[in-house]
Amino acid sequence: MENGHAKNRVAVIGSGNWGCVASRLIASNTTKLPSFYDEVRMWVFEEVLLTGNKLSESINQVNENCKYLPGIKLGANVIADPDLENAVKDANMLVFVTPHQFVEGICKKLVGKLRLGAQAISLIKGMEVKTEGPCMISKLITDILGINCCVLMGANIASEIAVEKFSEATIGYKKDKEVAIRWAKLFTMPYFLVSIVEDIEGVELCGTLKNVVAIAAGLVDGLDMGNNTKAAIMRIGLREMCAFSKLLFPSVRDNTFFESCGVADLITTCLGGRNRRVAEAFARNGGKRSFDELEAEMLHGQKLQGVSTAKEVYEVLTYRGWQELFPLLSTVHEICIGQLPPTSIVEYRIH
Amino acid sequence: MENGHAKNRVAVIGSGNWGCVASRLIASNTTKLPSFYDEVRMWVFEEVLLTGNKLSESINQVNENCKYLPGIKLGANVIADPDLENAVKDANMLVFVTPHQFVEGICKKLVGKLRLGAQAISLIKGMEVKTEGPCMISKLITDILGINCCVLMGANIASEIAVEKFSEATIGYKKDKEVAIRWAKLFTMPYFLVSIVEDIEGVELCGTLKNVVAIAAGLVDGLDMGNNTKAAIMRIGLREMCAFSKLLFPSVRDNTFFESCGVADLITTCLGGRNRRVAEAFARNGGKRSFDELEAEMLHGQKLQGVSTAKEVYEVLTYRGWQELFPLLSTVHEICIGQLPPTSIVEYRIH
Repeated sequence: MENGHAKNRVAVIGSGNWGCVASRLIASNTTKLPSFYDEVRMWVFEEVLLTGNKLSESINQVNENCKYLPGIKLGANVIADPDLENAVKDANMLVFVTPHQFVEGICKKLVGKLRLGAQAISLIKGMEVKTEGPCMISKLITDILGINCCVLMGANIASEIAVEKFSEATIGYKKDKEVAIRWAKLFTMPYFLVSIVEDIEGVELCGTLKNVVAIAAGLVDGLDMGNNTKAAIMRIGLREMCAFSKLLFPSVRDNTFFESCGVADLITTCLGGRNRRVAEAFARNGGKRSFDELEAEMLHGQKLQGVSTAKEVYEVLTYRGWQELFPLLSTVHEICIGQLPPTSIVEYRIH
Repeated sequence: MENGHAKNRVAVIGSGNWGCVASRLIASNTTKLPSFYDEVRMWVFEEVLLTGNKLSESINQVNENCKYLPGIKLGANVIADPDLENAVKDANMLVFVTPHQFVEGICKKLVGKLRLGAQAISLIKGMEVKTEGPCMISKLITDILGINCCVLMGANIASEIAVEKFSEATIGYKKDKEVAIRWAKLFTMPYFLVSIVEDIEGVELCGTLKNVVAIAAGLVDGLDMGNNTKAAIMRIGLREMCAFSKLLFPSVRDNTFFESCGVADLITTCLGGRNRRVAEAFARNGGKRSFDELEAEMLHGQKLQGVSTAKEVYEVLTYRGWQELFPLLSTVHEICIGQLPPTSIVEYRIH
């Protein structure tokens, strides 16, 4: 019990790589925190495995997701459930961690099915930046379900957190600090430190815009320009992420970009990550093979978020006449579509 | 002529790797800017080369420093001069770029020998952080010579700038913005962008404190903890650099840490650099071989700045009772002296 309120019950909507790791973190904490029921229900988009078993049944039998997070026990109190409504019906804390294109459909199915006073948090990176304004995933959830929604972002490579390597995350919230603290308690582990900031837009935009900067960093790698140039490009990228976010939402705060969701996630993404990797290959080929072609070859059907985000951001910049203010963000798109050569990434001037 | 003032004349004090690259940048600009005399006089600490030639004569014969920057032409207007007084006597803009232990002696020799209204800039990283307050190199120059001194710091690997790879730098100044702009003009190239900030202490502290964080990053590398953990440690390090600087000098500004001298130099130093490299070896040996031993083996007599700066910072923290506020900076020192194992770098809590 916390502050005399009813005990909290958590449901995780999604059971991919990050969804399983999140469930594992949460399940470890719910057994320790008296204000939470132990059980964590995890909604599974049902699949039939090659063995003929159903994914949800397999998870409940071996306490592992053998397809998306093999070798990692989730915790005995994680219960896989293929029935969305059933998974969430008793929960007052909902964790959204699905691919971003499924959020809208899932939310529509849940309208009128949630407990009174339910709270949500989104772990989903990849909002779209539309000309009429960014389509924040937290806002989509709030608008459809009429509930408050925080976000959790950061330098979070699921496979590294799964084996308990030290890292951090940032929770962005809007007004209700008590709820943000409750979410932070639910995720925090000695190897996973969570901070909270009252800047939901800043936190969520970081998780998307960093992919554009990762393309720039990958181009520098492919041009063999060295760490000095790469560091300069990452810095300029961070500055433009911050300035762009502030123009879109004047409430966005500089300090958010010093949090895990900002500089740390940017560093991780620019050191590893597929956006960086494909952009490196693009530059090594002198821009002669398109991103589409390289993506198909290197990512087996997955699409690069950075390329599409760069295009969306570019549309906003041209529509609003902000292009000159964001030379790096603009240049990345112009290189992606073959309008400029890869070497242009280091040839613009800072305004 | 600029604003009706007399034409500017530049002398560079130092001719090592970075000194030569700085002279080359400056010499390229003085020929283009009408407010500067073309000639750049570069003071050379005279050495006799293996060929029997004097270093200064060799530089003037081939327009290269064949010992410290072989293969790079400095510009015909760079004149090497082994006579310190003669090198500076006509200059009103003095660039200090020597090893930091020589600054005091050089300044003492120059007392009373400078032109009226002379200005200085220091490119020297490696101020000492003494218990009674940091010993800023810019302040040392100002105190001894009674002249204004700016600083230029950033992600500046001399060998990469020498071959004109894109990078940036930050000039920190105190009050006199017009002078800072004049310095920025003198260094800026299409591949070398220079910004100015009114925060000399913040800029200069960045150049020193980053080496402590690089030790932490190297430990993470040696423990094979992956990019996620490394990014988290770099972020925490950046935050502590900023907070520590602000406690020492309340005038220090957060934004300085978003400049090249802050986040970009930190990234470069944590990706490459000898502090990172030796710390990696230290962790791989489980802390069983001391930093002294590894330094001697890996650096051939050079000392690691990060280890001594960590010690100096630790003395300030314990003296002022700030230790708990800076878990990363404290832990690095305790690991360096063998009081904690290398794995402790990811075992503290953020306050």
